[in-house]
Amino acid sequence: MAWDARGLVPAIAQEAGTGKLLMLAWMNREALSQTVKTNVAHYWSRSRNKLWRKGERSGHVQRVREIRLDCDSDSILLIVEQVGGIACHTGRERCFYKRLENEHWSVVEPVLKDPDTIYGED
Amino acid sequence: MAWDARGLVPAIAQEAGTGKLLMLAWMNREALSQTVKTNVAHYWSRSRNKLWRKGERSGHVQRVREIRLDCDSDSILLIVEQVGGIACHTGRERCFYKRLENEHWSVVEPVLKDPDTIYGED
Repeated sequence: MAWDARGLVPAIAQEAGTGKLLMLAWMNREALSQTVKTNVAHYWSRSRNKLWRKGERSGHVQRVREIRLDCDSDSILLIVEQVGGIACHTGRERCFYKRLENEHWSVVEPVLKDPDTIYGED
Repeated sequence: MAWDARGLVPAIAQEAGTGKLLMLAWMNREALSQTVKTNVAHYWSRSRNKLWRKGERSGHVQRVREIRLDCDSDSILLIVEQVGGIACHTGRERCFYKRLENEHWSVVEPVLKDPDTIYGED
């Protein structure tokens, strides 16, 4: 593995059934190790600076079916089952919900569940 | 756009027809701008430290059908048609050709074309 200067690599989650790109997050060695051990996606949260079991608050965990590595060994691809059908903290199916249209980013996917309901209001 | 400290964001290319993840590379503002302007994928080469029109040597350009951005505006997704059916510099269909199997990375996709044939031998 070719970890970057921070000890991280980008990790992409793709839905097994639909092939949809759900999200891109980051992994360090521990996140990858925990993912392999538990078959549930773990990332490194750069904002909270801690190991992050995806879905630990929302219940929207990702069951890992397959782990792939690219030619340069510096990017990870997870093929996952997205529990709850919501990967994004905004309550959308996935994080890639903005599309470039006429030089503007348009939101093209709906909120499926109010984040306040997912995470509580505090 | 939330460019990182180097002025970059990760950019993923996904094949329009098959939904396969082809590669992850990096974009700076110029690469994104050229991609939008030409509808052909441009990245920033971190190894060569220059703008890189994907396929400029191999002919394996990526025609861009759609550009997406994620919730945090720090990752790009390109939906592309991969000309020549080869995205990886190793001559494989895509860069994510190593799969974790029994704690080892196994190569699970074939070389479709000898890189020497693609790039010349020098």
